[in-house]
Amino acid sequence: MIAPMNQPATTPFAPPFADLPPGPCWAVIFSSVRSAEDEAGYEATAARMVELAAQQPGFQGVESARGADGFGITVSYWASEEAIAAWRRHAEHALAREQGRARWYSGFALRVARVERAYGSTGSHDDTAT
Amino acid sequence: MIAPMNQPATTPFAPPFADLPPGPCWAVIFSSVRSAEDEAGYEATAARMVELAAQQPGFQGVESARGADGFGITVSYWASEEAIAAWRRHAEHALAREQGRARWYSGFALRVARVERAYGSTGSHDDTAT
Repeated sequence: MIAPMNQPATTPFAPPFADLPPGPCWAVIFSSVRSAEDEAGYEATAARMVELAAQQPGFQGVESARGADGFGITVSYWASEEAIAAWRRHAEHALAREQGRARWYSGFALRVARVERAYGSTGSHDDTAT
Repeated sequence: MIAPMNQPATTPFAPPFADLPPGPCWAVIFSSVRSAEDEAGYEATAARMVELAAQQPGFQGVESARGADGFGITVSYWASEEAIAAWRRHAEHALAREQGRARWYSGFALRVARVERAYGSTGSHDDTAT
């Protein structure tokens, strides 16, 4: 079955996958290399940011992976560019971002993209376009 | 400095980061959970797909991370939707995709998105919008 725009609401995507609702969707693709510094502080703040992001208007979901080499990708999904801008202005997020740049990351890249199509399969349910 | 559309060509992004050229850019965000099966076959094919993708017209770069929990995100960047469609039709890629669905992944999600903005910093050079 082809799902031309996101998954239907019935798709049983569960963490670690983001279960995106139908409708407009924006992706913030954040990739980074962790410095060796302050693992405990980094982990606590990263967890807090996920918790806080999930409370923001327009938040749709997040997926995150980091390999043993320290390179990681986190993709958060949002209903609008306004929602992304508001989250960017959030004071606690801004502070975390500063700490990240100063201490936790030796490099990063951030791309903001508008999601045009989505497919997926969790095994039990298949929205795959082949 | 703000880089409203991708990085300037002088930005020294190097692997594991994708060094995106200026101009239009599309992201294919592939997230997946690895099954426990066939690590050697999976690794060889994954490496081959990166090598092959890099030879395709319109390929701009790729970033990939997978954690110890088996969840991974690979984002490949392309100059156009046509380039993505052509890569999708590539016979060797299609075969690898089938094997992936049958054996290597217990679940996956794929989102295609148009990149609207990009920032980044590798420490030595900063295109960060703060």
